[in-house]
Amino acid sequence: MRLSTLRHACRNLPTPSVHQPRTGVRVFGLAKSSLPLGPSSNSQLLLRAASSVSGTTSAEKAPKLGKQTDGPGYENTIRENVQRTKEEMVALQRGHPALKPTLAIIQADEDDRLLELNKKMAGKIGLNVTQICLPRECTEDEIIEEVLKLNEDPRVHGVYLHLPPASLTSRVLNTLRPEKDVDGVSDLNVGRLVRGDMNQGFIPPLANAVMELLARHGEQRKFVITLYVSEDHGMEMSGVGPLTAALRMQNVVQSSSRWAQGQQYRPWTLRSLKLQPLSPVPSDIEISRAQTPKPVDQLAQEIGLLQEETEAYGRTKAKVRLSLLDRLREQPDGKYVLVAGITPTPLGEGKSTVVIGLVQALSAHLKLNSFACLRQPSQGPTFGVKGQRGQISTRISMLEISMLINESFNLHLTGDIHAITAANNLVAAAIDARMLHEATQKDKALYSRLVPSVNGVRRFSPIQISRLRRLGISEIDPSALTPQEVSSFVRLDLDPAKVTWQRVVDTNDRFLRKITVGQASTEKGHVRETQFDIAVASEIMAILALADGLGDMKTRLGRMVVGSSRSGQPVTAEDLGVSGALAVLMKDAIKPTLMQTLEGSPVFVHAGPFANIAHGNSSVLADKLALKLVGEDGFVVTEAGFGADIGMEKFFNIKCRASGLRPNVVVLVATVRALKMHGGGPNVSAGSPLPREYIDESHHSLLQSLQLFPWFPLWLPSPWLLHRTDTQAEIDLVCQMAKESGASDAVPCHHWARGGRGSVELAQAVKQAGSQPSHFQFLYSQETPIVEKIRMIAQKVYGADDIELSPEAQAKIDYYNQQGYGKLPICMAKTHLSLSHMPEKKGTPTGFTLPIRDIRASIGAGFIYPLVGTMSTMPGLPTRPCFYDIDLDPVTEEITGLF
Amino acid sequence: MRLSTLRHACRNLPTPSVHQPRTGVRVFGLAKSSLPLGPSSNSQLLLRAASSVSGTTSAEKAPKLGKQTDGPGYENTIRENVQRTKEEMVALQRGHPALKPTLAIIQADEDDRLLELNKKMAGKIGLNVTQICLPRECTEDEIIEEVLKLNEDPRVHGVYLHLPPASLTSRVLNTLRPEKDVDGVSDLNVGRLVRGDMNQGFIPPLANAVMELLARHGEQRKFVITLYVSEDHGMEMSGVGPLTAALRMQNVVQSSSRWAQGQQYRPWTLRSLKLQPLSPVPSDIEISRAQTPKPVDQLAQEIGLLQEETEAYGRTKAKVRLSLLDRLREQPDGKYVLVAGITPTPLGEGKSTVVIGLVQALSAHLKLNSFACLRQPSQGPTFGVKGQRGQISTRISMLEISMLINESFNLHLTGDIHAITAANNLVAAAIDARMLHEATQKDKALYSRLVPSVNGVRRFSPIQISRLRRLGISEIDPSALTPQEVSSFVRLDLDPAKVTWQRVVDTNDRFLRKITVGQASTEKGHVRETQFDIAVASEIMAILALADGLGDMKTRLGRMVVGSSRSGQPVTAEDLGVSGALAVLMKDAIKPTLMQTLEGSPVFVHAGPFANIAHGNSSVLADKLALKLVGEDGFVVTEAGFGADIGMEKFFNIKCRASGLRPNVVVLVATVRALKMHGGGPNVSAGSPLPREYIDESHHSLLQSLQLFPWFPLWLPSPWLLHRTDTQAEIDLVCQMAKESGASDAVPCHHWARGGRGSVELAQAVKQAGSQPSHFQFLYSQETPIVEKIRMIAQKVYGADDIELSPEAQAKIDYYNQQGYGKLPICMAKTHLSLSHMPEKKGTPTGFTLPIRDIRASIGAGFIYPLVGTMSTMPGLPTRPCFYDIDLDPVTEEITGLF
Repeated sequence: MRLSTLRHACRNLPTPSVHQPRTGVRVFGLAKSSLPLGPSSNSQLLLRAASSVSGTTSAEKAPKLGKQTDGPGYENTIRENVQRTKEEMVALQRGHPALKPTLAIIQADEDDRLLELNKKMAGKIGLNVTQICLPRECTEDEIIEEVLKLNEDPRVHGVYLHLPPASLTSRVLNTLRPEKDVDGVSDLNVGRLVRGDMNQGFIPPLANAVMELLARHGEQRKFVITLYVSEDHGMEMSGVGPLTAALRMQNVVQSSSRWAQGQQYRPWTLRSLKLQPLSPVPSDIEISRAQTPKPVDQLAQEIGLLQEETEAYGRTKAKVRLSLLDRLREQPDGKYVLVAGITPTPLGEGKSTVVIGLVQALSAHLKLNSFACLRQPSQGPTFGVKGQRGQISTRISMLEISMLINESFNLHLTGDIHAITAANNLVAAAIDARMLHEATQKDKALYSRLVPSVNGVRRFSPIQISRLRRLGISEIDPSALTPQEVSSFVRLDLDPAKVTWQRVVDTNDRFLRKITVGQASTEKGHVRETQFDIAVASEIMAILALADGLGDMKTRLGRMVVGSSRSGQPVTAEDLGVSGALAVLMKDAIKPTLMQTLEGSPVFVHAGPFANIAHGNSSVLADKLALKLVGEDGFVVTEAGFGADIGMEKFFNIKCRASGLRPNVVVLVATVRALKMHGGGPNVSAGSPLPREYIDESHHSLLQSLQLFPWFPLWLPSPWLLHRTDTQAEIDLVCQMAKESGASDAVPCHHWARGGRGSVELAQAVKQAGSQPSHFQFLYSQETPIVEKIRMIAQKVYGADDIELSPEAQAKIDYYNQQGYGKLPICMAKTHLSLSHMPEKKGTPTGFTLPIRDIRASIGAGFIYPLVGTMSTMPGLPTRPCFYDIDLDPVTEEITGLF
Repeated sequence: MRLSTLRHACRNLPTPSVHQPRTGVRVFGLAKSSLPLGPSSNSQLLLRAASSVSGTTSAEKAPKLGKQTDGPGYENTIRENVQRTKEEMVALQRGHPALKPTLAIIQADEDDRLLELNKKMAGKIGLNVTQICLPRECTEDEIIEEVLKLNEDPRVHGVYLHLPPASLTSRVLNTLRPEKDVDGVSDLNVGRLVRGDMNQGFIPPLANAVMELLARHGEQRKFVITLYVSEDHGMEMSGVGPLTAALRMQNVVQSSSRWAQGQQYRPWTLRSLKLQPLSPVPSDIEISRAQTPKPVDQLAQEIGLLQEETEAYGRTKAKVRLSLLDRLREQPDGKYVLVAGITPTPLGEGKSTVVIGLVQALSAHLKLNSFACLRQPSQGPTFGVKGQRGQISTRISMLEISMLINESFNLHLTGDIHAITAANNLVAAAIDARMLHEATQKDKALYSRLVPSVNGVRRFSPIQISRLRRLGISEIDPSALTPQEVSSFVRLDLDPAKVTWQRVVDTNDRFLRKITVGQASTEKGHVRETQFDIAVASEIMAILALADGLGDMKTRLGRMVVGSSRSGQPVTAEDLGVSGALAVLMKDAIKPTLMQTLEGSPVFVHAGPFANIAHGNSSVLADKLALKLVGEDGFVVTEAGFGADIGMEKFFNIKCRASGLRPNVVVLVATVRALKMHGGGPNVSAGSPLPREYIDESHHSLLQSLQLFPWFPLWLPSPWLLHRTDTQAEIDLVCQMAKESGASDAVPCHHWARGGRGSVELAQAVKQAGSQPSHFQFLYSQETPIVEKIRMIAQKVYGADDIELSPEAQAKIDYYNQQGYGKLPICMAKTHLSLSHMPEKKGTPTGFTLPIRDIRASIGAGFIYPLVGTMSTMPGLPTRPCFYDIDLDPVTEEITGLF
């Protein structure tokens, strides 16, 4: 740049267009204007004003233009800055040895002296440099494409746009992510600089360099005023390139340091939504509509998630990536709280509402980080019977739905159950097709189809090699197998009568409870009786709930046993060759779905396995993510399906065993009415008026006759809590009884009418209990024989005298032991309506023997499930399903009748 | 504010913290600093500097502080500004009569004079004012909550934060959407002001007011310099409140005007991604992985979608809301291009790749707005047979999949097919459950269950009232129905043998082609033979493809006929009471899914009905949205399934009839190899080497023997195009033949190897053809009798001599005529492998009679489909399904083997 141009630029200083090529010089013009002010604030104002610099290259290029950039003083300034930055680098890398602070340079010109200078400076300080070279005539789109790539690249911490001034358009500058804009030239960073929001943004290096020089050379006011009046007198200046480069690298180090800090646990800035208490309690849908949910990306940011860790699904739901677990691996977990219930009654206990109310109280009222982890409800019952809780554990009641501000909670949500359905049914189709193909083809034909010649080459696929390994065949050349090896490879030889895998559908379709398939002529008479279950009964749902990562899920999916061969060998999903496809189908479902409560507290909704043939708890992964996110002093509240004898027992012995997590507090939910029923109150039925025993306080003798679960204090110190009670005398009585039988506390809850505020007492009790040490221990060791495990659960949890095994059950136990499944935990498939196997026995039945009708196994999920009675795995539709009331207004898009 | 405070503030001017209470005054300090500069740029610099103002209230409040705000000059300044703003308002409202420019005020203090002043000014100018009153001690969260509500409220165009200075935190200021920040105080708007990006952002009204005053009073430099040196001499100033208010309202009008402009059609700023041409052509998955897709929100913005019109599903997919159609209703449509194919052969023609190549050529190379609209592929065949096109129309071939940068294209995508499955199977479950309940209950019991007493009141639901209307019963009091009316109301009396509704599953499950359901004891012997189809064969998929809005979809879902009663009356989904629930299940599926091609061109993926029993075209809604988005000079390219005799004929006579849209250009895709086969070349089979007739040029006599479709020129002037041809002589020959038989042009395509660049010639031909008038007409009128419609298609499209109806077909025609379905268009269910009904007859067969075996109807979708032969609606799995090769790396999450 020639001097005359520089002078001209000074005269024309205020023109603000970014297209003006020599904007760098403006710094000087603005600098002087601020100098008459107090020295302490001098630099800040200068920098704010200087921020109109958008393309800094030209000014930096001016080789040597005055005394400010001459001599040892200047050299010292540079040296000191470099030294300081190097020290910052050392400190940063000490804290983060894996971090490689990196500057990316986009260059659209031949390499030049200034670029060299910057690269050299980066090297001096120890920064990595990535250089992207574009042709001089590159288009704006081409630059933008590179900028976008650098935006997304987590290895790049700063970007230096070494481009001709005409290429530094507003679009280019504002495409660059502000956190990588180390020249501080984007609109947002300029605004931050002006407004002094310097926790984000950067001081433009050129402006900073000028300030440094001015500060070094004293007599600023005079100097600058002189500069002003003498601007036509040929004053020389600039040569600020080296110092600017040093300060740019300082910004890269600052950016890297911020990035590293951003990877750390971040304290929450949760914004609670105010819930207007309404009286009388309005319908759930009205409550829900009255609230404006936070956009999910904002919620994610409030709870310390990084932008790249979430994937939005619409405006109020997002999937959260599992990479979070790795990022926060050093972060201590929060407190782990389980909400369990007494044995369910038709009156409803409302565990899930307690979960939501508790989390809202903890977060919105006690200001403690807290997270709810809930099961995803099956879509089927949504259109069946209202509050069909007794029949299907995954149906969540009215209020808790409305507490999540999103109708899709009860609809497709993020498609996880659909993914399970697709994966489950692919296995089923593969089973029947394979049996047909084996029945209609000879070994050789099967082998040439299973291992076809592609362009003259035959090769086993990796999934087939796994099968060969299981068969003990180490050969990997398809032509080298013996005929016997070929036969054992191609024939799974599934026994149609011993296929245990069922198809599923997420609809209450009772006519699919028992069906015959294969009746079309194309299936050549290979008919077979089978059944459809509701989708959430799929073993894949149980796997989703228990897996602790993608790799673990894939392994579990591969080892699912779908039936056994005619010779009695288990046949797995991997034998069918389908395990990779299953993992692909489930790759998004494994990420928990983030939603929020009505008061704006975070909720993970993830997995919803059956609570009888499976373990009835939401996912291990959601709990793990949430425990990291809430941090050491936070709380994660989750819920166990059915009563404590089922959901809580399985939470302890199956889920906690799989996850390695240990609960800190257990909340047991009960209502006065339900306790009265267990104390001997009359039966109730839907539609009939409630017997007066449940309304009338004078019947609280029913409470007194109640025996509290004898086994409860076995495990944990835990508060015992009540809600929605009727009169103060009853509340007092129940609280007293609870404390007498070992609960650390017992309090009433009013969240039903008052949201989080109604659960503050509970939240305080939980906080108190969480501060005490817990003495968690499993009920049984894995090594205990299967029969003994079952007996321990029956005696210690249900209060049975003993168990009685059917011959089928005994035979299965022998078979499982022989197959090496003996160490799996036990998942009892028992009625949830009684502690015993007899649904009509309320309270605490004694003097009974628990019959074990049969035993099954979910090898992929990793448990054995004894059948105590018949479990329905497919609900039906009543005469008037609730879909009669469900409607959609095509104009407003409002849904009615869903709750 | 007292004078001394003001002076003090002037001295302390540069402190940048937003918490400093009297920031308004800083304007003056900064103003003077810029004055020595040239007058033209003066105000801009002032304003840029002044933008450090964050809370303007204090300065505005100062009642009267100098000659600048005194006297008639000042009054005039205000009057002129008000007048100008009023004129802008009038002009704005003339162009947008429905627009009500609105200022929202958030106030956290008692009302005061300044607030009154602003409200009065708003009234003068004709703005609506919404006032939100918070208590003085409100928290930051409470303010943020209100700001967020206003952000989302489309009726509010500007927000004035009339809050105590301490409440104007960075968080509050930066939460407000920049486009509503009419005080210009957010970081981003300040940065824009500084950098001169004034197409967005606002000039802070207070700063603007000061400038106006300075400009009015001449001798600026001197005045300001005086001001500076004399700041301690007790100068009076301020009183700028009224002018500031006027300028604030000006900003609200400007914001409203921008909002109105934003609602208009916006020219695209599409950024194309560069495709590296690779030789040899790499595998599709490699091409796909080499590209970095644009984030979908950015793509949406580039093509003129508003933020509130999209719902992201992950990072690269988004659903687009139908409200777009209303916003752009005045916008003329673009050109509508159909890509059809010759009769398919096992060699593959690759229509979908032509669609993608063409759109890429149009947008990335000819720089014309263009959109591809594709069908969503079924998930089933993804895991079955590679390129299983012959069996199932919705399977899209390898290259086109890879052209969409998203593996989920072939997986769950945004869950539309899962929603269809859920809706379809809910109808099926409702049918069987209803038949069971009717068979096992008397009228009275059914009635009391269907219309139960809730709290003593019995009421029909709206869906039931619709049924009553159809039965001719006008009574709405449930107790007033006669026993006969009750009986006809409660009994659908479905004949199990005449249920036409099937269950569906999105899996290739051949064993479900014919099944028996209801064999469990709970279904009391009500067994029934039925079948599962693949999900995309559901009538609900055809409805999704043809509906032109939520209301239309709901109506169509309700009128779907699921079977007939014993007395021969059709029974609909609405009779089952399930139509509202179906609409709810489908409410998100109706929004098309936005994706992108490898070169960054936009694609809608939406609906994928079968091309035999349904019409085989993607959705009407996607086409309509795309036609609005591309604008008058743009192009929307869509594809018809199978050959032109099927997909194109149905596109014209079914889809265009339903949508009201008319095609401008038809592209017919052929390959030399496929033409040779139709010209008499030998059969080919998978795995065997290709006969030399297809490789060797000397066999191009096969081309000469080819008869071109005699019916093609009936409709449109259209280019006839070729791709992937083998030698120049063959290309020339085919192009010549195509032109001779009526094509407006014929060109070769090389997109397979070169992406969009390989289709530039095609794009130019399409552009040229699109500029010519089209003379589209339907093949038949709706009024034509059913038999005649079928005959016209058979003779004019297929070249048959005549048709032959089976007795079943004749009986159905009589029944449909009687039911009033005679005016529906015809959807032929014919093999796609020949123009005739005989798959082995290639080329242009003649001398045949088309047999019509049976006729069915999709009343909800709105067509009658004659069966010409047997249509498989459930594909199967081969011995070695492609799932053997599909795998997921649990660490990198990379999928292998999917394509």
